[in-house]
Amino acid sequence: MKLFRFGAPSHEHPGVVLPTGQHIDVTHFGEDYDETFFASNGPERLAHWLESHAQHCPDVSPDTRFGPCVKRPSKLICVGLNYAKHAAETGAQPPAEPILFFKSTTALVGPNDEVIIPKRSEKTDWEVELAIIIGKKATYVELDDAMDYIAGYAVHNDYSERAFQLERGGQWVKGKSADTFAPLGPYLVTKDDVPNPNGLHLWLSLNGERLQDSNTDDMIFDVPTLVSYISQFMTLLPGDVISTGTPAGVGMGLKPQRFLQPGDVVELGIEGLGEQRQTAVSYH
Amino acid sequence: MKLFRFGAPSHEHPGVVLPTGQHIDVTHFGEDYDETFFASNGPERLAHWLESHAQHCPDVSPDTRFGPCVKRPSKLICVGLNYAKHAAETGAQPPAEPILFFKSTTALVGPNDEVIIPKRSEKTDWEVELAIIIGKKATYVELDDAMDYIAGYAVHNDYSERAFQLERGGQWVKGKSADTFAPLGPYLVTKDDVPNPNGLHLWLSLNGERLQDSNTDDMIFDVPTLVSYISQFMTLLPGDVISTGTPAGVGMGLKPQRFLQPGDVVELGIEGLGEQRQTAVSYH
Repeated sequence: MKLFRFGAPSHEHPGVVLPTGQHIDVTHFGEDYDETFFASNGPERLAHWLESHAQHCPDVSPDTRFGPCVKRPSKLICVGLNYAKHAAETGAQPPAEPILFFKSTTALVGPNDEVIIPKRSEKTDWEVELAIIIGKKATYVELDDAMDYIAGYAVHNDYSERAFQLERGGQWVKGKSADTFAPLGPYLVTKDDVPNPNGLHLWLSLNGERLQDSNTDDMIFDVPTLVSYISQFMTLLPGDVISTGTPAGVGMGLKPQRFLQPGDVVELGIEGLGEQRQTAVSYH
Repeated sequence: MKLFRFGAPSHEHPGVVLPTGQHIDVTHFGEDYDETFFASNGPERLAHWLESHAQHCPDVSPDTRFGPCVKRPSKLICVGLNYAKHAAETGAQPPAEPILFFKSTTALVGPNDEVIIPKRSEKTDWEVELAIIIGKKATYVELDDAMDYIAGYAVHNDYSERAFQLERGGQWVKGKSADTFAPLGPYLVTKDDVPNPNGLHLWLSLNGERLQDSNTDDMIFDVPTLVSYISQFMTLLPGDVISTGTPAGVGMGLKPQRFLQPGDVVELGIEGLGEQRQTAVSYH
């Protein structure tokens, strides 16, 4: 099942993509895709509801605005340097265990919203990433059980201001948290429709030029390892988002380095999860 | 005005301390101390409501359990090495600008709840800190306006697993986010009752031995500077918590180092904001 949220920012409604590709409005299901929904078997309940209600749901216009595919989660956790080639391009050694950092959840936006280059930014960069959406509360989860805690997957562009991240005092969150720095979606694809999350093609283009082009099979720490690992350090709540790291091809790693300018167009996607498109604008 | 939350974990009710010291239950005000409350002038509206309703509110028993003094915020931001003496004891240079990191909001607990030493922890440490509670949405706030964005203040113990924080891959969030690692409260004291947040005595004792004993006037970056600074990198939402750093005397800085053992009792407080008391237990 593919879930999406559509409508004006902060006023999104829930939608579902039917197997036919038709996008329908499921506002009448009466729930948004938030912590409560995931904590109460929402995807399963929604699928059951659709059996008798899908035919009565209105279509969603193809030119709708998509919102982030989950409503604001309790946290947005990211994994650093999780592809061997990307670790190499940043000059870092591949990590011995996952590197974790947070983004502010205020950074979340829809997949095709503008990305705002922050005030005083000179190094706004892109990172296509596979995001995991957590399905149930997870604490000290064993590796063999980790997949049970996942609701589904989505595309995430982990925008990063490299000067803020790396040249302003050492902790990465400072360069990861600006408004619009976390486009998420368009779809949350439930895990039953993603048989192998560690075998997905992912890519990103800048103004039509393909800069990132890899596969999630190149992750140093795979999906179940990350869920189990993170849950050793903190409790994951339903709806929480884990962004699993980016492959080579970010602006910081290019020679010469390249960073976003107003008017630049960033397009990205992951096999089976959909595509995003952001136009960069200056803060105004 | 002093606000508190009381009752069973995750089912707290709102309370207020009257000028007489009497603790009353304001459940009938109909709101909890959360983002919506702060975003809508909650403290002012509550003060007005109390003028005609306080006398009808039931007392709260002095042996009540206190919860965290705000309901789960969108984020819990911490400032590192913000007291000169503490920076020195960790062996670090005083930072040129504030160091920021996040804690998972799942770490929040009441001020007198047990602190759980995580599985595989060997270095669970304490940090008494002044917490700022944000009163309205803040983005790119000028220094001169920063105090307008503050709702009030509270005591926070920024528990930290030093091995997880410093020896497991470089980003501090990993050592800051375990369940029970963020006791907050007992009171949110509104800013009108805290004329100078940068002139408050704060202290912490372990098993009766005073280990931290300082004043918020020793901060490298003061309260308005922190609010303005952080808002350059992310949007602060009403109810968000900024923990402003800890003075010297943490376990990592002692010679020899000391870390929490099951049965240890940690007591801490800040002038005018109240006191906390946690007993350490093993994860079970």
